[in-house]
Amino acid sequence: MTTERIDNVSITTRANVYFDGKCVSHGFTLADGSQQSVGVILPSTLTFTTGAPEVMEGVAGACEYRLAGADAWVKSGVGERFSVPGQPSFDIRVSGEPYCYICRFG
Amino acid sequence: MTTERIDNVSITTRANVYFDGKCVSHGFTLADGSQQSVGVILPSTLTFTTGAPEVMEGVAGACEYRLAGADAWVKSGVGERFSVPGQPSFDIRVSGEPYCYICRFG
Repeated sequence: MTTERIDNVSITTRANVYFDGKCVSHGFTLADGSQQSVGVILPSTLTFTTGAPEVMEGVAGACEYRLAGADAWVKSGVGERFSVPGQPSFDIRVSGEPYCYICRFG
Repeated sequence: MTTERIDNVSITTRANVYFDGKCVSHGFTLADGSQQSVGVILPSTLTFTTGAPEVMEGVAGACEYRLAGADAWVKSGVGERFSVPGQPSFDIRVSGEPYCYICRFG
């Protein structure tokens, strides 16, 4: 089971476009003031720089991720979450269907 | 002036990916039940099939559009709106910076 809708948010209309459009997200703010985003990663292998810890939740498709310092790629699909420490970066790769996600801080 | 935020919406977490990712959007529902979306078009020339009339509002970048049956391309930028009749299709082209938009029906 995954999160199909998120209610009572204030959406930022301008998209965030990363890696020439291989990743696109839209940010929003919840009623309690916390910031999240919904996004999609197209088939590619990308390295994201992270400033703060994040939790990713898949809502469509699947990805593999590799945290900084790790050797192994770990698969994550719909309804699954993984935590990214506030380390310098992590790798993510997608093949086939685009990976849609929710990104939460903390 | 353009619409930077839209409050009190219910966002659909799964992205809509069109044309191999040249256009990505996220849909949301307003408190009154009406459906809208925010999206981005990367540099490209695309033909969209339209089922119902739509109003597009630019929130970043610029595009040129050409309605079905028209010869001329018309430029539209930040804070500008254009209406697309419920005709079979319209053309849109973007060069340079991605074009971010709000799409409303009606």
